Amino acid sequence: MDAETGEITLPSSQDSNRAATNADALVISTDLDHPANRISELCRLFYTLGWVTGTGGGVSIRYGPHIYLAPSGVQKERMQPLDMFVMDYATRQYLRRPPVLKPSACTPLFLAAFTRRNAGCCIHTHSQWAVLVTLICGAGLQNPQKKGVFEIKEIEQIKGISRGGSGSDEIAEGGRKLGNLGFHDTMRIPIIDNTAHEEDLRETLEKAIEEWPETCAVLVKRHGVYVWGKDVAQAKTQAESLDYLFQLAVEMHKLGLKWVHE
Amino acid sequence: MDAETGEITLPSSQDSNRAATNADALVISTDLDHPANRISELCRLFYTLGWVTGTGGGVSIRYGPHIYLAPSGVQKERMQPLDMFVMDYATRQYLRRPPVLKPSACTPLFLAAFTRRNAGCCIHTHSQWAVLVTLICGAGLQNPQKKGVFEIKEIEQIKGISRGGSGSDEIAEGGRKLGNLGFHDTMRIPIIDNTAHEEDLRETLEKAIEEWPETCAVLVKRHGVYVWGKDVAQAKTQAESLDYLFQLAVEMHKLGLKWVHE
Amino acid sequence: MDAETGEITLPSSQDSNRAATNADALVISTDLDHPANRISELCRLFYTLGWVTGTGGGVSIRYGPHIYLAPSGVQKERMQPLDMFVMDYATRQYLRRPPVLKPSACTPLFLAAFTRRNAGCCIHTHSQWAVLVTLICGAGLQNPQKKGVFEIKEIEQIKGISRGGSGSDEIAEGGRKLGNLGFHDTMRIPIIDNTAHEEDLRETLEKAIEEWPETCAVLVKRHGVYVWGKDVAQAKTQAESLDYLFQLAVEMHKLGLKWVHE
Amino acid sequence: MDAETGEITLPSSQDSNRAATNADALVISTDLDHPANRISELCRLFYTLGWVTGTGGGVSIRYGPHIYLAPSGVQKERMQPLDMFVMDYATRQYLRRPPVLKPSACTPLFLAAFTRRNAGCCIHTHSQWAVLVTLICGAGLQNPQKKGVFEIKEIEQIKGISRGGSGSDEIAEGGRKLGNLGFHDTMRIPIIDNTAHEEDLRETLEKAIEEWPETCAVLVKRHGVYVWGKDVAQAKTQAESLDYLFQLAVEMHKLGLKWVHE
Repeated sequence: MDAETGEITLPSSQDSNRAATNADALVISTDLDHPANRISELCRLFYTLGWVTGTGGGVSIRYGPHIYLAPSGVQKERMQPLDMFVMDYATRQYLRRPPVLKPSACTPLFLAAFTRRNAGCCIHTHSQWAVLVTLICGAGLQNPQKKGVFEIKEIEQIKGISRGGSGSDEIAEGGRKLGNLGFHDTMRIPIIDNTAHEEDLRETLEKAIEEWPETCAVLVKRHGVYVWGKDVAQAKTQAESLDYLFQLAVEMHKLGLKWVHE
Repeated sequence: MDAETGEITLPSSQDSNRAATNADALVISTDLDHPANRISELCRLFYTLGWVTGTGGGVSIRYGPHIYLAPSGVQKERMQPLDMFVMDYATRQYLRRPPVLKPSACTPLFLAAFTRRNAGCCIHTHSQWAVLVTLICGAGLQNPQKKGVFEIKEIEQIKGISRGGSGSDEIAEGGRKLGNLGFHDTMRIPIIDNTAHEEDLRETLEKAIEEWPETCAVLVKRHGVYVWGKDVAQAKTQAESLDYLFQLAVEMHKLGLKWVHE
Repeated sequence: MDAETGEITLPSSQDSNRAATNADALVISTDLDHPANRISELCRLFYTLGWVTGTGGGVSIRYGPHIYLAPSGVQKERMQPLDMFVMDYATRQYLRRPPVLKPSACTPLFLAAFTRRNAGCCIHTHSQWAVLVTLICGAGLQNPQKKGVFEIKEIEQIKGISRGGSGSDEIAEGGRKLGNLGFHDTMRIPIIDNTAHEEDLRETLEKAIEEWPETCAVLVKRHGVYVWGKDVAQAKTQAESLDYLFQLAVEMHKLGLKWVHE
Repeated sequence: MDAETGEITLPSSQDSNRAATNADALVISTDLDHPANRISELCRLFYTLGWVTGTGGGVSIRYGPHIYLAPSGVQKERMQPLDMFVMDYATRQYLRRPPVLKPSACTPLFLAAFTRRNAGCCIHTHSQWAVLVTLICGAGLQNPQKKGVFEIKEIEQIKGISRGGSGSDEIAEGGRKLGNLGFHDTMRIPIIDNTAHEEDLRETLEKAIEEWPETCAVLVKRHGVYVWGKDVAQAKTQAESLDYLFQLAVEMHKLGLKWVHE
């Protein structure tokens, strides 16, 4: 493997076509649940949900020793398995780089969820409901004392959100059982400030992940949300449950209702 | 049949594969209207309507001596016939339990509609319109005297809702003909408080069903709605008509309009 | 043909199967634009647009000497050509009545558009935007002097609406050329009160059609809208343009903007 | 080629069928990215997004020496390659005119983007969010000093919008590098008044293009928006990003939030 490019090359060959063929094998599968197929399918779904309009947002899956990443700047509803980047998790080298395409600027942020939370899948959306929630919080319209966190409680859908962010079967340090939030729990999602360049979010995102050990998501002000889970199913259903809660929260705010009532 | 697990086992065989094969026959059919196929199709439809986001909500069909139930925690738009639980209605034993999957926590609530209203199908959604209606009512924003019931009248779509909840051809006790609500009737849907655990809703749900003999649905505060009908078609169209009325009611409220005018 | 039922029966046969076969020929065609196919397709489309939720609404096409009608109470997204009623336009006798199904209560209202405006297609929706417009008008929230008409002007989409209601190439009595509304024209759609039974709308609907010779639609308060056109394409695109204008009007009202500015 | 009609005719033949065959070759291709196929696909997509309701809006692609144009008045979700008009870019003669259909009234406006910005694709929508933004601006509700321009800043999705309107790799006159807007940049889209006839927009649209060298779009008051890009992908993703920003801006306005904060 070339240390600079991360391409797989066989020792006995400089044949770049042959290298490409080997790298392509990483993304070609008849298994619909293979990450290269699943990311393509998720991108099409997220497009219809309004989460990845205009090439915004992204999704990444950790699969054995590899990380699969949708590329930057590609129309999400036209995503194909051959568009995928594949990175070696241990060395952070790209094993496959589609020609022409650029890797996603979200890559360091996805890696933060993989390494610090042992996540298996991470989803980034530009959902307008997420952005509106950060604006309402940031302006102190719901709670002037808490501009940096989205809080809501006593909505059934909160039960779709895990504590600790990757798996309901985990045990937290100290032996406390984790699992999903209950109806009477207060769900708290931290909000970090946006930066001019997406990769510069890494530091504050990692800090938020450290400081909020129970969160499975981080909101980015005027930008969107990062959500993760132990696998694709948990990341996706948590992203859906959160988006539901963001939308409901905006509608509640319009009706003059508090997200956390006394 | 094993009394403990409810699995079908042939007397002459302990072969679990063979038992599985027999149980699978309960959910495999080329008939698109077979309940195992119909539930899968309804789950996909309800996903697109935003009713079962993030594995929320559920649906159950009574079919001859059996109850078909979608499992808990499965992504609704990926539901397959082989994911279905099948229960014997008389004994409440599971005739089929898909491995790995968990039965829906809604099961006792669906059974309440089947037994107390002779329903043939029961649908549970987390529709945001249902939740917002319970919040508006609960805060007394439309009618401070009636926080525990959603009332609306003189909207054409009300005519899609049956009196008595399961069939327009029934005769109520005392001989009064039931049938669907008229345009000038006031539709009333009771609202019950949510509980920490879904199965604990059973008691108050059954009480609401008893106390409101004409309702075909019960709203659950900050949670969603249970709707039933004599068959799939009636349950589904009533769920749609109610959701339409919930959404319209929220929009009317935003415009400062009363749901029940004098 | 039987005068009572309108079924086609051959003189030499009392074979009801054979009669059925002949009547079925009226709705079986490989031509996707045949009215039995087109109504089925439109019902599926209108379902996704939220116009015919819970079996509400309907559509009818005049085709040569016949009227094709979607039945009452059928889930619109499951409509099939064999569900269609076919009426002889001249005699108003049903040439085909699907067993079990009931004819639409909208039938006399569709006939009003066919006979009084020479329409080729008529669409009835329960669109919430239509209902909300009737509520805003009826409460005098936009113009207390004009509670019985929806007026809007200087929105580009108005140019999708014809004067006279059936065809932009017609000449009005007196020789005035009709054609579509212009950007600076005021679009006016009359609003009639709803009645307990849909068929009782006929009289006021016919009156509104007479009194508003330039309208291609009538709004029904707290109910929905009837829209027609010279053919399917015009009826459908006018229904879309009107729904766009109803939605825009509701949003404008929320923002405090007048539909007709001075 | 006939100078009057622009039809291709072979010198040795007056056979109109043969001419038609040749012109049809311009729109028949098995390549899904061929402009005749791509426009049809985009029209279906834009219909589902609510951008081209009731035959409103349009799209055009520049392809080598030719301009491909969707016709006027055709239901966008039923658009087919054989419905396309093809114009010779140099001579502005139609090389293909489908019988019965009329060329789009947007044609001179699309040409303005092609000639003055070297665009490869231009999209026109009647999106309600675009119309509402022009109404909010025009009424001075956000900024009474700036009724003729939509301004927003510090929303991540702004980064999906290019400076200069056709290509992030271009160099502006004077050597300043263009590229996309940054998060801290203020996006400005000029708003021009609507005219009674769409073709009469050409003069003010061209003027706006000249006066706003960095814009990739022009809003038309009470009408919609024109968006262009160097190719289909850029035009489409910019149209999506703008529509996202228009919708977010309307929702922000409802919540009392400023689009450009100090």
